[in-house]
Amino acid sequence: MRKVWINGEWFDEGEAKVSVFDRGLLFSQSVYEVVPVIDGRLCNVAYHIARLGGSLGTAMIADDTDWPAVFAEAVTRNGVTEGRVYLQVTGGTSGDRDFLSTQPPPPPTRIVFTQSGAVIDHPLVSRGMRIALKPEARWQLRSAKTTQLLYAVLMKEEARAVGLDDAWLVENGHITEGTSSNAHIIDARGVLVSHPVTYGVLPGVTRICVLEIARGMGIEVEERPFTEAELFGAREAFSSAASALILPVVEVDGRPIADGRLGAITAAIREAYVERLVNA
Amino acid sequence: MRKVWINGEWFDEGEAKVSVFDRGLLFSQSVYEVVPVIDGRLCNVAYHIARLGGSLGTAMIADDTDWPAVFAEAVTRNGVTEGRVYLQVTGGTSGDRDFLSTQPPPPPTRIVFTQSGAVIDHPLVSRGMRIALKPEARWQLRSAKTTQLLYAVLMKEEARAVGLDDAWLVENGHITEGTSSNAHIIDARGVLVSHPVTYGVLPGVTRICVLEIARGMGIEVEERPFTEAELFGAREAFSSAASALILPVVEVDGRPIADGRLGAITAAIREAYVERLVNA
Repeated sequence: MRKVWINGEWFDEGEAKVSVFDRGLLFSQSVYEVVPVIDGRLCNVAYHIARLGGSLGTAMIADDTDWPAVFAEAVTRNGVTEGRVYLQVTGGTSGDRDFLSTQPPPPPTRIVFTQSGAVIDHPLVSRGMRIALKPEARWQLRSAKTTQLLYAVLMKEEARAVGLDDAWLVENGHITEGTSSNAHIIDARGVLVSHPVTYGVLPGVTRICVLEIARGMGIEVEERPFTEAELFGAREAFSSAASALILPVVEVDGRPIADGRLGAITAAIREAYVERLVNA
Repeated sequence: MRKVWINGEWFDEGEAKVSVFDRGLLFSQSVYEVVPVIDGRLCNVAYHIARLGGSLGTAMIADDTDWPAVFAEAVTRNGVTEGRVYLQVTGGTSGDRDFLSTQPPPPPTRIVFTQSGAVIDHPLVSRGMRIALKPEARWQLRSAKTTQLLYAVLMKEEARAVGLDDAWLVENGHITEGTSSNAHIIDARGVLVSHPVTYGVLPGVTRICVLEIARGMGIEVEERPFTEAELFGAREAFSSAASALILPVVEVDGRPIADGRLGAITAAIREAYVERLVNA
């Protein structure tokens, strides 16, 4: 029975579990390493530990585990002569789901397990690999609501660190979406402009309702990307999300939107949406 | 005590756990939804279920749960009048870590929990949000070894589906890296060309050793991106990774590299690396 190490304790592999509120599971705030084992010895440990340090820093996870000692015990306990040691460190769990970590952050969740198997005698060494070329499109998955949310966590943390409420994302001079919301403006002409959901953003459910309501109120709607300049020249700006519904944006990078006051059209759309939800 | 639903069973929130081998935790093969609750009623459920279907398809997760029934029970059990229902579905666990899922795939891991709290009376409605603009750089995190590995899982599955061993990724006509390895060629001049690790790829530990060994053998090394054309015109191609060490690539998109036979330089570098590991 393989033993798995979690935060200093050893568990049978079938009993090795983490909370559903773990930030690795919810937000992919989580880094890992795989260290080969040959003749019962760990390979290149110093390099792996050095890279782990960089990954932990990127993911805003604090950790001071004595990894070589844990690796050595994992190899011994599981009798690994050839194979690998897997290590994963997550942002821990504070008992509920929130992009922003509690402060101070919870202790990280630290996991180590081993896998026995041939490292040197890999069958593809003698046959050779046949591979495919695929587009480097790792974040084109943004149209699906996956838990690959680490960047959203980091951008929300950066915003919090300077006393701001959230961040909107900019690609090639255009606003795509918020870290966990869709982004909209009432532009200088009074038109509601919202990034299309056919590419580049998550198709928000609340956004569907926002556009329906706006059209019902006789507001013209354009589903197209808008620029930073359009944002700063807009009459109003607002975000939409299932949890927070519709929230007015009054200031972007320290500059007010219009006169910096709450937008009347945003308020009207929000009121109509709340009424729809309450009377559903 | 809040109750959490996992795969049809209810757990106290402190006991709600998933295996460390869950594909959501290991690979971010995992999608989610957040459904608002107002006056004890779920909002926009049909839209959320529709989007969930799309996300599940993207992430290659099969699921036929009767979600509205589960949501309703979660709201009732936890006495939620206003708040939200959170749902997450992962690729499940097959008891060990492998990018490629067992076939048939394991049943998905399905999690539902609730959060009570104001949805309508959000404090930012009356104050307005102050936000920052941030670069849309969600996958610039590729230099850190995070568990945001869903795309790697999908590309390996696509390769497997057509009988191939793996995929290499192409960006702007250049090879960046493999799905879980660094990519290298011995080009037409006999030079070892490897994407630099200062940007765009994960800095591989095995890659460090590969370049040291090659230089020690008198092979010229260029750390720069190489093109698809250079790959197809190369004398040899190979991948490096901690688990599989160094593997020769003999065929790319159905076309042989050089004469399609195992490369002599690749074999020599591999042999030197294995010797180094064994005699460490």
